[in-house]
Amino acid sequence: MSGTLQICDTTLRDGNHAVGHQLGAEDISVYARAAESAGVDVVEVGHGNGLGASSIQVGIAAISDAEMLRAAKAELRHSRLGVLSIPGFASVERDLKPALDCGVDEVRVGAHCTEADVTRQQITMLRAMGVTVKGLLLMSHMASAKKLVEQAQLMQDYGAEAVVLMDSAGAYTPQKVREKVGELVDKLDIAIGFHAHNNLGLSVINSMTAMRAGATIVDVTARGFGAGAGNAPVELVAANLHVEQARTRIRLFGALDAADTAEERFVKHVPTNDSVTIASGIAGVFSGFAAPVRRAARRFGVDPREILLELGERRVVAGQEDTIIEVAMRLAAERAPGDLPHGSADHI
Amino acid sequence: MSGTLQICDTTLRDGNHAVGHQLGAEDISVYARAAESAGVDVVEVGHGNGLGASSIQVGIAAISDAEMLRAAKAELRHSRLGVLSIPGFASVERDLKPALDCGVDEVRVGAHCTEADVTRQQITMLRAMGVTVKGLLLMSHMASAKKLVEQAQLMQDYGAEAVVLMDSAGAYTPQKVREKVGELVDKLDIAIGFHAHNNLGLSVINSMTAMRAGATIVDVTARGFGAGAGNAPVELVAANLHVEQARTRIRLFGALDAADTAEERFVKHVPTNDSVTIASGIAGVFSGFAAPVRRAARRFGVDPREILLELGERRVVAGQEDTIIEVAMRLAAERAPGDLPHGSADHI
Repeated sequence: MSGTLQICDTTLRDGNHAVGHQLGAEDISVYARAAESAGVDVVEVGHGNGLGASSIQVGIAAISDAEMLRAAKAELRHSRLGVLSIPGFASVERDLKPALDCGVDEVRVGAHCTEADVTRQQITMLRAMGVTVKGLLLMSHMASAKKLVEQAQLMQDYGAEAVVLMDSAGAYTPQKVREKVGELVDKLDIAIGFHAHNNLGLSVINSMTAMRAGATIVDVTARGFGAGAGNAPVELVAANLHVEQARTRIRLFGALDAADTAEERFVKHVPTNDSVTIASGIAGVFSGFAAPVRRAARRFGVDPREILLELGERRVVAGQEDTIIEVAMRLAAERAPGDLPHGSADHI
Repeated sequence: MSGTLQICDTTLRDGNHAVGHQLGAEDISVYARAAESAGVDVVEVGHGNGLGASSIQVGIAAISDAEMLRAAKAELRHSRLGVLSIPGFASVERDLKPALDCGVDEVRVGAHCTEADVTRQQITMLRAMGVTVKGLLLMSHMASAKKLVEQAQLMQDYGAEAVVLMDSAGAYTPQKVREKVGELVDKLDIAIGFHAHNNLGLSVINSMTAMRAGATIVDVTARGFGAGAGNAPVELVAANLHVEQARTRIRLFGALDAADTAEERFVKHVPTNDSVTIASGIAGVFSGFAAPVRRAARRFGVDPREILLELGERRVVAGQEDTIIEVAMRLAAERAPGDLPHGSADHI
């Protein structure tokens, strides 16, 4: 593993998904201090969907982006402050420039794994301003290694200093991590990272495998606090790095303390798997689908896992939530012909 | 992976550790039925420490061995009923023979990884009676591959039909699994198994790695329900086998259902890691030490993780619990010379 390993702690961003974006300024201060003590390289902060995302559609955050960023920044000295920017949610003038004024040290600009071109404007502009900027490829299990290389090269050309593969559905196996990360490390000139989710119980090994394949950025959260089945726990990644005697800035007891602090303060439920999160990982479906799938399953009296496996076969992505109802209705009709709940797709 | 893969579901035995051995007959019936439906090969049932272990020292079980075994047996048709026997807790006349009368199909006789010789009498006798008998090597991370081969060969010579490496402290990395399981598969003529714990967040990958290295028996529990940081979850192992398209009797939705059933019925807290369980895994210390270490840490005002790491360096094993107090006192003395809590080891 590389001596320049960067641990990006996204507890205060991805974790915000797990509490409906309700982390407050005091939560952020307390945890940022713990992460700084743990020696993590980057503390990513914000609404779960990043800058400018607070809205009725994806959830209104407890406090503004600026309040979140200022709360974190005040606690950081060696650790850098990061934000997520997804074009569509975040815009340059309204969100990015004010965030930089709050002391943000790096911006990660994210897009679906086949749509790197939508990151062009933001990456180019941030790079021109001298800001550290990285690219994130969401739902990266859905694209081949070849396609990911092509998309990552676009981000590199725009000026990204790194590209991170997001396992947004928790669908990667270590073999796939090795294959895809290895290919990117081979073909790109910039740093490569990996962001794990735990739907198949593989978040820790996938993070370790990514590093062994040459990734130098790994995303973690305290106790795995994050969307769906959760992320790679900072405390377990730190423990494994300790066992492997890897060179990193992270301090083992600091990471363990940070996770304990998060659990005491705001991790109400440590993420664990259930049938739905696991089926979601098998299907490779975005974790944001879990709640509407559970609702549709109850409404139509069908198995949520069957809905998820079919959504996986159809390769649905965020924005195609209507498909959930369509699949649930078809499964209900197959199960009991003639017994379709009254109403039709027109009424939904 | 082999087509003859055996999944041993030890929810109703290792899980009993997580509830102070308080699983009742109805819990056992309900879960045994779910495990049967899931297609697991063996359902292991009993006190956490196995037959004859109910006692003030390690915990009094809610019901007798015979009641537990009869409750499970009544629900099993294709799945076999298994028990754990640790010589010292279990004796042939008092425990093993009555258990066989309850319809037990296989006995796993366990010993510390360097003490296979204590299993000789039981394995020999059970084999002579025509009973399926397997050997378990506890705390197997503490012995070299060479030592494990030697000990496993003893069990093979006594008549064991398989040997299972127990990762009692949750200390294995996948590399170690590959090395040790691979060596046993090479050198032994009988089946090899692996029993994971999750202290380093690696229980699923270690189980999958064991199978890839030639192990044909893997131990699992519902939601990881078990001692310390828990075991390899049956639902996640089933999900990974599904993703890998491995040939096995286990049915994916059945395994997911079984885990849901267990969680609804008796898994009050899904096992997760905290600083102490992780430090225990790093140190390779038996999970039964966690509770007394936490107590000693509070009493002497020292860090439980430091106690565990030192116990790991001293390579303590079950039965050496006195060392905990000794280490805690020394750490307290180092921290604040002259400020040792009053009293001495004589008074403890």
